[in-house]
Amino acid sequence: MDASKTYLIVGLGLLGGKYAQTLSGKGFTVTGIDCNPDTIRYALEKAYISAGATEQFEDLVRQADVIIFGLYPTALLDWVRQYGQWIQPGTLVTDVCGVKRGVVGPVQEMLPQGVEFIASHPMAGRETSGITHSAEVDFAPANFIITPTARNTQAAIDWCRDLAHTLGFARITTLTVAEHDRMIGYVSQLCHAIAVSLMCASDNADLACYTGDSFRDLTRIARINDKMWAELFLWNKDNLIGEIDMFSTALGELRQKLVADDRKGLEEMFRLSTQRRKAFDKK
Amino acid sequence: MDASKTYLIVGLGLLGGKYAQTLSGKGFTVTGIDCNPDTIRYALEKAYISAGATEQFEDLVRQADVIIFGLYPTALLDWVRQYGQWIQPGTLVTDVCGVKRGVVGPVQEMLPQGVEFIASHPMAGRETSGITHSAEVDFAPANFIITPTARNTQAAIDWCRDLAHTLGFARITTLTVAEHDRMIGYVSQLCHAIAVSLMCASDNADLACYTGDSFRDLTRIARINDKMWAELFLWNKDNLIGEIDMFSTALGELRQKLVADDRKGLEEMFRLSTQRRKAFDKK
Repeated sequence: MDASKTYLIVGLGLLGGKYAQTLSGKGFTVTGIDCNPDTIRYALEKAYISAGATEQFEDLVRQADVIIFGLYPTALLDWVRQYGQWIQPGTLVTDVCGVKRGVVGPVQEMLPQGVEFIASHPMAGRETSGITHSAEVDFAPANFIITPTARNTQAAIDWCRDLAHTLGFARITTLTVAEHDRMIGYVSQLCHAIAVSLMCASDNADLACYTGDSFRDLTRIARINDKMWAELFLWNKDNLIGEIDMFSTALGELRQKLVADDRKGLEEMFRLSTQRRKAFDKK
Repeated sequence: MDASKTYLIVGLGLLGGKYAQTLSGKGFTVTGIDCNPDTIRYALEKAYISAGATEQFEDLVRQADVIIFGLYPTALLDWVRQYGQWIQPGTLVTDVCGVKRGVVGPVQEMLPQGVEFIASHPMAGRETSGITHSAEVDFAPANFIITPTARNTQAAIDWCRDLAHTLGFARITTLTVAEHDRMIGYVSQLCHAIAVSLMCASDNADLACYTGDSFRDLTRIARINDKMWAELFLWNKDNLIGEIDMFSTALGELRQKLVADDRKGLEEMFRLSTQRRKAFDKK
């Protein structure tokens, strides 16, 4: 990555803040835009950014060589619609959005000629949010997924990989936009839908003292950022509904085996799940 | 606990083996019965027990002052039916079963006059099984639940509490048999049913490289001892089916909100789950 360039982070939330912290810590020039003055103040105090603004940020946009959007999908689309024309030709743009189909095409469509948007998703979310928690984020064990389209150049894909590497991601892969959203519907969104439903299913506070690690592990992600996850779920609702239906069918089969006292059938399901789960053990 | 007494463990599996290891390590006289000669050999070699047998164990039973059943529910019922008459009056008996309604009443019914069965459940299971994994079990953070009935004496309840304390459990509570099974259907069995169904829902090996901690945490317990869990599920099927239905209703509501693009409704569920989950954080 080029240390003479200026990196503008738009949206200094949990991930945007971590990008700013990491890049400035490595000597890059980082600027920031956020709608919350407390966030800009915090980022300046911690030296995550060298300049920042909540409004009148046209100059910051024009001076950026790289722009990284740390915004939710809807806010990202709104921002590009409103301010995208200020981005200079030659600027490289990426994002951190957890869903891609509704974002990547429209943003590439809206940006000025000569501005390249190469989308990516750092899978390093946590239960917390906001820049004051950014320092707790750990990129090293997380997946970084680049989702190029036909409009992207190999140079931009390579640059994005380089960015991920600089940020500390060890596992960097490439998927199509559609593959990404299908994958994320299963490995992330379905899990969150299940954890949330488990907590919402009954008022279980009296059982807290009896829970072991099983319950705790299963529901850790039920502590969820409501605004962000409503966004992510709705932008990927077709995939997520499909995954919920597939899961519900499997749970329904297990239920049917219970009703039928089908011991052999249950044991078969348990052996299948055991065998499949082995592939997911951490190396 | 009385160090002059002899503690017989019937069924030296993961938990029975750990009981034997812990009690013998504290200087108690521990004997063992298991159907597998390798298990008895291992327990003798490791000095978990001072004597053991796979058959012709009438003397071991008659000489025991305390008997702890480390058997699955069906095997426990069979054993008591077949050999229970050898247990001497004055013997205190407990178990480790993860379900109670189908076990406690029948066993209390079958045992000879003067033999008291005070049921208990050490919630310290793991994905592994067998005595060779016993040393990995940690009782300290686990719940130990005593489930007395009207047939039990206060002295036996106190003794069982004392046993749990000696074994190293810090959290010892008492529930009725029915309360126990209702609780376990929710905090343990439903979680396992969900994790298994998630793994069985689709052939997902190609996604292993993209999974973050969410998916890994949610499915850790999908590695499951097929024989034992089929037992536990079937002995508690009414509770478990009820819990599955309650969970499915909640998941169905979430799905409906997705279909209806009900952003506010989704955010409400997320806030409810976040608030309820806070009660479960480890102190």
